[in-house]
Amino acid sequence: MTRPPAVVLLSGGMDSATVAAIARADGYDVHALSFRYGQRHAIELEAAARVARAIGAVRHEIVGIDLRAFGGSALTAEVAVPKDRPLAEIGTAVPITYVPARNTIFLSFALAFAETLGAQDIFIGANALDYSGYPDCRPEYIEAFERLANLATRAGVEGRRFRVHAPLLALGKREIVERGRALDVDFAITSTCYDPSALGAACGRCDACRLRLKGFAEAGLVDPAPYVEDAPGR
Amino acid sequence: MTRPPAVVLLSGGMDSATVAAIARADGYDVHALSFRYGQRHAIELEAAARVARAIGAVRHEIVGIDLRAFGGSALTAEVAVPKDRPLAEIGTAVPITYVPARNTIFLSFALAFAETLGAQDIFIGANALDYSGYPDCRPEYIEAFERLANLATRAGVEGRRFRVHAPLLALGKREIVERGRALDVDFAITSTCYDPSALGAACGRCDACRLRLKGFAEAGLVDPAPYVEDAPGR
Repeated sequence: MTRPPAVVLLSGGMDSATVAAIARADGYDVHALSFRYGQRHAIELEAAARVARAIGAVRHEIVGIDLRAFGGSALTAEVAVPKDRPLAEIGTAVPITYVPARNTIFLSFALAFAETLGAQDIFIGANALDYSGYPDCRPEYIEAFERLANLATRAGVEGRRFRVHAPLLALGKREIVERGRALDVDFAITSTCYDPSALGAACGRCDACRLRLKGFAEAGLVDPAPYVEDAPGR
Repeated sequence: MTRPPAVVLLSGGMDSATVAAIARADGYDVHALSFRYGQRHAIELEAAARVARAIGAVRHEIVGIDLRAFGGSALTAEVAVPKDRPLAEIGTAVPITYVPARNTIFLSFALAFAETLGAQDIFIGANALDYSGYPDCRPEYIEAFERLANLATRAGVEGRRFRVHAPLLALGKREIVERGRALDVDFAITSTCYDPSALGAACGRCDACRLRLKGFAEAGLVDPAPYVEDAPGR
């Protein structure tokens, strides 16, 4: 039986690894797509490659783009990544780690990839609960992109429908951990940290680490990924 | 008096040069944005730089992206550009020169650029009449992107409105020539051809040249841009 192709945006973090596993479990052949976008943490690309292999992706493309030309985020510019923020503060405003229009750019490339593959399905690990500060992680944003995709492309004109799947949209970090675990995602090979060590160990103190650690703690599990020795809260 | 900033997508062709002149005439400071996207005709980037200078752009960014990874178009892959097609055929179906999701990718970068600049206005030279074969040149597509932009960004969340201006959308090539001429656009420095010579002379035979030449002919003008010696229909 042939499996339909799907494009899966894969950052190498726990969310996109879980999404890739979901796409695979839903019966799709996974065509993974990652970006080299001037991010500090190129280490996440190595994680993405490991995850793509582990998940049995049939293809993994890395597209180079340069968002640094525009500046504007702690993930791409020489601005300090915030550390040790109280959990209650995370997600209450657009964070400094917000990269302008990043999901729009990523989904646009996913759409181009999907159209050339003949794929009608795009998977993204956007998550509205823990990251409510990112405007492009909201359900109405995902719906608007799906609508755009069907107007933007030859496939849409010819009557095929694109679907943008964001299966983590309404999940908390704990539920994501549990969902991934149920699908045998190897979280040890994923990398979520905004500011990892040169060897790829997570800092344990940036917003992404704090939310991830909270998810594992709430699920009653220990995060198997490597952290720096003095990382708090493991 | 300060002029508000606008991002103008600038390919170096006659349409985007006219749009840049319109943005300038409408009172905006022009921040031009071009792409190096694996196109055959890197010559258009030189044209874009000339146009940006001539129009008095305050900034011109060229973003490198690699659409070749996905294949799929005569403009980026090793597929022959169609020549000498009857005008009646052009625009009746999605052409082989269609680059999947190209305008979506370009507008996404324009949105990122606009957000970091604090600009609320994006200009694009999309044109629905002569290029009805391109799904991402239709009015409903432009509207859908504007809607997305306002959901995708911090600016949108904070109540500022993005506007996507496509002032050529409903114009024929003749009207574009006349509009550009009225705004003193120097068409001699623009490059529209899909398959120019090494020195930048237009072929006169691809769809883009044929539509451009038709526009000048209907306006009763001679196209001042360089063409190869045996180019028909000048």
